[in-house]
Amino acid sequence: MSERIGQLTVIGVGLIGSSLARAARQQGLVEHIVGCGRDRAHLDTALRLGVVDRAETDPAAAVAGADVVMVAVPLGAMRQVFAAIKDSLPAGAVLTDAGSAKASVVADAQAVFGELPPGFVPGHPIAGTEKSGVEAGFAELYQNRCVILTPLASSADWAVARITDLWRGVGAEVVTMSPRHHDEVLAATSHLPHVLAFALVDTLGRMQERAEIFKYAAGGFRDFTRIASSDPDVWRDICLANGDALLAALDKYKDELEALAEAIRRRDREAIEVILRRAKSIRDQNVIS
Amino acid sequence: MSERIGQLTVIGVGLIGSSLARAARQQGLVEHIVGCGRDRAHLDTALRLGVVDRAETDPAAAVAGADVVMVAVPLGAMRQVFAAIKDSLPAGAVLTDAGSAKASVVADAQAVFGELPPGFVPGHPIAGTEKSGVEAGFAELYQNRCVILTPLASSADWAVARITDLWRGVGAEVVTMSPRHHDEVLAATSHLPHVLAFALVDTLGRMQERAEIFKYAAGGFRDFTRIASSDPDVWRDICLANGDALLAALDKYKDELEALAEAIRRRDREAIEVILRRAKSIRDQNVIS
Repeated sequence: MSERIGQLTVIGVGLIGSSLARAARQQGLVEHIVGCGRDRAHLDTALRLGVVDRAETDPAAAVAGADVVMVAVPLGAMRQVFAAIKDSLPAGAVLTDAGSAKASVVADAQAVFGELPPGFVPGHPIAGTEKSGVEAGFAELYQNRCVILTPLASSADWAVARITDLWRGVGAEVVTMSPRHHDEVLAATSHLPHVLAFALVDTLGRMQERAEIFKYAAGGFRDFTRIASSDPDVWRDICLANGDALLAALDKYKDELEALAEAIRRRDREAIEVILRRAKSIRDQNVIS
Repeated sequence: MSERIGQLTVIGVGLIGSSLARAARQQGLVEHIVGCGRDRAHLDTALRLGVVDRAETDPAAAVAGADVVMVAVPLGAMRQVFAAIKDSLPAGAVLTDAGSAKASVVADAQAVFGELPPGFVPGHPIAGTEKSGVEAGFAELYQNRCVILTPLASSADWAVARITDLWRGVGAEVVTMSPRHHDEVLAATSHLPHVLAFALVDTLGRMQERAEIFKYAAGGFRDFTRIASSDPDVWRDICLANGDALLAALDKYKDELEALAEAIRRRDREAIEVILRRAKSIRDQNVIS
């Protein structure tokens, strides 16, 4: 049995942060939740909804007294949050994050802390929707979802155990891997598809027949482009933070697309069929609809 | 009020054809439904499910006595179906199809019929799922969906009116446009996204970490790649039949993707943001989730 968390501080009370706060409270895993953000109106909403018990705009004040600190801000804001909490983070606190890229978060922490705190365990819940903001959060977001932790050589066992307990407590499955490996896998399964969807919608939007084009878009198109409705700030930061792994995945994709285009150009029935059949078979075997 | 259809013949009793048969019967628009296909077991299923009243493997026998003939087969099979029914199609029958490309269907009909029958009105219901086969069909598939008809100079007004009534009768909105314009619009909104999704799944499937990669795929990825589970035969034929329009859309897409990749390569925060913001705004304005 894991000990109840006295104070959970969530920096960035958006979809990801507020869902963890809601779930931790619902499961009775935490006594007191402090929310921190730059936008006072947003924090007031979090207070009104009962997502947090106390709200702070100053990260240093928010982490004082914390047992667990979750930094759930866009990747581009990680370094300044680490700098802001550096001097007031309690020695025994677990410090974790929900960033979609991990090497960049580790680099940001290293740049700020120098020697990394033993309580620092980077993480990434593989969950979310295309919505954003505190009102989009919900307690069930992490149920049966996968959370990847990327513990470092500096991470203490007690810190890994504590954050693992929290994620399991809200219904998630926890796996661990290196930050680099995380970044390669996520570049392929998440960052690449998002970039492709953003690019598709933008391409169609620039076509002349714009209004008409979207009129004839069917269900498959809606599904396909839903992720292009995701928060552009979050995704700009992901593109910047995980650029190398994303560009590597994009290169492989462009090669594949070129091979398919070439087969279509040649009207090569068999070559087209091989690619489509293989794709369908891979998806049907690996992805639960 | 439109006259009830005495005999509706559906050639190709899969998702599209069987859904029309089910809906027409449910709405009382038709007295007798004849189904035609190559696979006897498949036809027996259609009979057992009550989707059709009579089943034929010979298209010529199936269209005898028909008032409306719907050809709902993959694009690559259109020409041989037209050839098979040419001599037994009743003079006053409406002949339509559900092919996802229209210029190729018109070319196939022209090659077979020479002078096109006045009852011939090509069409395309913008509806479907990633599933296929008679068991995947359902009567509500076309409700509130758009059906594009592409009447030709040779199409008689009575034929256009009759097929329009049928589609409206099963709940669809009917619009008309030229075959060429249809093919350009659909290349952008449907054929391009499918090709992108097939290519993405195949790319990931070829990566070393295959099993692991799909394990960490979240909801967005499932949505994004659902269309890669579509029938490869149907989509091979679409790639072949609408190749030119598809390649033109693909070229625009590749340019857009290259611009985004270049912005990521340069870590150009602003350029990335412009593209992502524009895409989100276009989607939020045009597509109902």
